[in-house]
Amino acid sequence: MRIGIIGAGRVAHHLARALSARHQIVQIYSRSLDKAAQLAQQVQASAIHSPAQFDATLDLVIIAVSDQSIAAVIEQVHPHLPEVLMVHTSGSTAMQLLQQVHARAGVFYPLQTFSLEREIDWSQTPVFIEAADEDDQAVLLQLANELSQRVYAYSSEQRLSLHLAAVFACNFSNYCYDIARQIVDVQQVDFSLLYPLMLETAQKATQADPKTMQTGPAMRGDQNILQMHQQLLADAQRLDLQAVYQLFSQQILERHQS
Amino acid sequence: MRIGIIGAGRVAHHLARALSARHQIVQIYSRSLDKAAQLAQQVQASAIHSPAQFDATLDLVIIAVSDQSIAAVIEQVHPHLPEVLMVHTSGSTAMQLLQQVHARAGVFYPLQTFSLEREIDWSQTPVFIEAADEDDQAVLLQLANELSQRVYAYSSEQRLSLHLAAVFACNFSNYCYDIARQIVDVQQVDFSLLYPLMLETAQKATQADPKTMQTGPAMRGDQNILQMHQQLLADAQRLDLQAVYQLFSQQILERHQS
Repeated sequence: MRIGIIGAGRVAHHLARALSARHQIVQIYSRSLDKAAQLAQQVQASAIHSPAQFDATLDLVIIAVSDQSIAAVIEQVHPHLPEVLMVHTSGSTAMQLLQQVHARAGVFYPLQTFSLEREIDWSQTPVFIEAADEDDQAVLLQLANELSQRVYAYSSEQRLSLHLAAVFACNFSNYCYDIARQIVDVQQVDFSLLYPLMLETAQKATQADPKTMQTGPAMRGDQNILQMHQQLLADAQRLDLQAVYQLFSQQILERHQS
Repeated sequence: MRIGIIGAGRVAHHLARALSARHQIVQIYSRSLDKAAQLAQQVQASAIHSPAQFDATLDLVIIAVSDQSIAAVIEQVHPHLPEVLMVHTSGSTAMQLLQQVHARAGVFYPLQTFSLEREIDWSQTPVFIEAADEDDQAVLLQLANELSQRVYAYSSEQRLSLHLAAVFACNFSNYCYDIARQIVDVQQVDFSLLYPLMLETAQKATQADPKTMQTGPAMRGDQNILQMHQQLLADAQRLDLQAVYQLFSQQILERHQS
């Protein structure tokens, strides 16, 4: 397939590199021509800085921009590529948002957290596809199957729930790590002391229901420790972290007493 | 060394099994004689059901009970073992709590989350020791070094901060997984779809500052998605989860805008 990519961020990088193994990435379009050029060079594509430069004979265009830019991008690009299959890569944006402007609309959503610095294992990364047209769905299914062993046809509603769950499992657990780091930094304690604990906690949760794996003072209902920890955060004038501590402890306590 | 253990929970199990490789676990004392007997059998020890049955010639007694029980246990056991080195295994309980009753007091705190079902890698598990007496400190240091490559002499204050950080990094990140599981369960979606994401998030946070690894709609300031997710939780009448979503999103937003 001859593929165009819109965006030059983390998702665009990872998808472009993975797809370039079997397909031709023809063009990269980004608001930042610099970023487009950087990515284009890695996958032997051309960087373009205007949607008018798009090759109208592309087989597929992947919109890998932030959710809030998808609507503007499709308005801008559609007139130049009216017949080309276009997909976005978002968990929470409905396909309808594309489809109301562009008939050959679809979704190609990889459920993973992407960083520029780290390679991911595509074969184990679940990919969720959706398409307005049946033939287009078959095309996306084949493309996804080349990358991943875990491909699913999901509706926009199903994808939204999954993305919401992912925000808790990924973005919010990472924020818990961020808080832990802030706490040890104040004491000039090495954050790496917590690594075995963080990895073991994640690994455990992939082998049994996280509810049954819950540990800690809130789960045990240990009021003394809960109060000491909150006092420590209050003394450090971290009312923000105290609010998190209080809310989580209360919810864990209730969940494990009932 | 000839060692006695008080408690028959997760920490007691893991410590007894690990220490039994080089030392003799002589006695296990627990409120539940059944549980004590189960553990005792695994490490060729005797289960006892009264502190009066303790062998007063033990070299070390490890108190591996919940924080809230430590004070009562030491009051009960001290008269029978007045000369024996006794340590607790708690992150947040000060050594002073033991020491005010029992002169030869210490702490042996492994920073890990223990489950009965899973083996842990002791060599990489940080162990924090403290002792009222210098010779006792040397004894604990040697014992800890046999188990782990990461042994530190920490004060009770340092340990408390570390444990507080661990609550966020472990107990609270696990609660985030638990919430994610509840969300996918409602949709009858397989929780294992989130495993690659959870493991990648934890692994990333052990390779770079979690602040720089933050992703998600709150970090991007994507108000549309934030509102959709909160609406979804409100529709599902999960005001508890909505409160978590709101608090975390607001804090992540503020942290990444400043």
